Amino acid sequence: MRIPKHIGVIPDGNRRWAVNHGMEKKDGYESGLNPGLALFRKCKSMGVKEITYYGFTVDNTKRQRDQRLAFTKACVDAVKLLSGEDAELLVLGNTESEMFPKELLPYTERRTFGKGGTRVNFLVNYSWEWDIGNKDAINKKLRSADVSRVDLLIRWGGRKRLSGFLPIQTVYSDFYFIDDYWPDFTPEDIDEAITWYDRQEITLGG
Amino acid sequence: MRIPKHIGVIPDGNRRWAVNHGMEKKDGYESGLNPGLALFRKCKSMGVKEITYYGFTVDNTKRQRDQRLAFTKACVDAVKLLSGEDAELLVLGNTESEMFPKELLPYTERRTFGKGGTRVNFLVNYSWEWDIGNKDAINKKLRSADVSRVDLLIRWGGRKRLSGFLPIQTVYSDFYFIDDYWPDFTPEDIDEAITWYDRQEITLGG
Repeated sequence: MRIPKHIGVIPDGNRRWAVNHGMEKKDGYESGLNPGLALFRKCKSMGVKEITYYGFTVDNTKRQRDQRLAFTKACVDAVKLLSGEDAELLVLGNTESEMFPKELLPYTERRTFGKGGTRVNFLVNYSWEWDIGNKDAINKKLRSADVSRVDLLIRWGGRKRLSGFLPIQTVYSDFYFIDDYWPDFTPEDIDEAITWYDRQEITLGG
Repeated sequence: MRIPKHIGVIPDGNRRWAVNHGMEKKDGYESGLNPGLALFRKCKSMGVKEITYYGFTVDNTKRQRDQRLAFTKACVDAVKLLSGEDAELLVLGNTESEMFPKELLPYTERRTFGKGGTRVNFLVNYSWEWDIGNKDAINKKLRSADVSRVDLLIRWGGRKRLSGFLPIQTVYSDFYFIDDYWPDFTPEDIDEAITWYDRQEITLGG
């Protein structure tokens, strides 16, 4: 079976999941933490070499304050959880903003935790404009140059869009969409995505 | 009903369609011409303001010669067909290459045909590297700056990927995938895509 080297993850649907469970929207994010860890372990066990999580974007920070605080906390907690695993961790995003949580500054250069072996990129206060740097002529290369091309992009929550997720690295990605909301993640989602990925013919336009 | 302003079109599957019909691969492209015109008319009738067709890419030109000549001819013919409609036409791609058909040079600045009213962008010998210009520090803005954000991206042929299609303009697009090969296009495809699009909640990350 052909395994994607790099899987991008858009873990959407936390708020809708919360509403369906009679909770406040903001309370959905915490329920996404264990799925994130389970996904990491599942991908690692299958030989995936790199995982990029879409934490939150500069656009997301315009949401109401209680939600912003909740997803920011969930990202901080997620990074700390992942730092307990065998991972090479990088938090990537605009640190020159109050919206970037100070607790994550120590993770903004890639560091190896445990035995390493799996690269994990966690996008925090990310935006594609910031990434491309096309408002700033000084930037001659991508700010995310350390993130390699994404082979398979999986999105939970039923939306079929990238929402600004690494536009350059996803130019040849295969997209796999899952209707379930992120908190209902199961490792079988990955089985299904990879089984599907295995059937896709890679042409890179050739 | 909320209608997308700008629909991107990846008309994939011509060669697989040809094989299924006992034809040579190269002969599938010609069968894509009438669908392209039917799509234009259908979209225009529904009030779509801009359509971008993925003609061929720099990567595509690495295919075998008979196929390259066939899809190049199909693009030239498609642009000529569209120039008989009420359209504001722009052919966009790397003209500084032998792979760019000379017949299309007169279309590389936007021109109004008939009564105009619908913008049509036709990507010919396009590549996202050329577009971003990140190998060339002189470029401070996108070369495709005249193409607006894509609201809905529809791809025929069963693949679920962008294949380098306008990475910046598609950062917030909704993607709609159709298993049918492009030559089997029917206007009902657009009905279904727009019905689906109408149900999508637009958040732009907010």
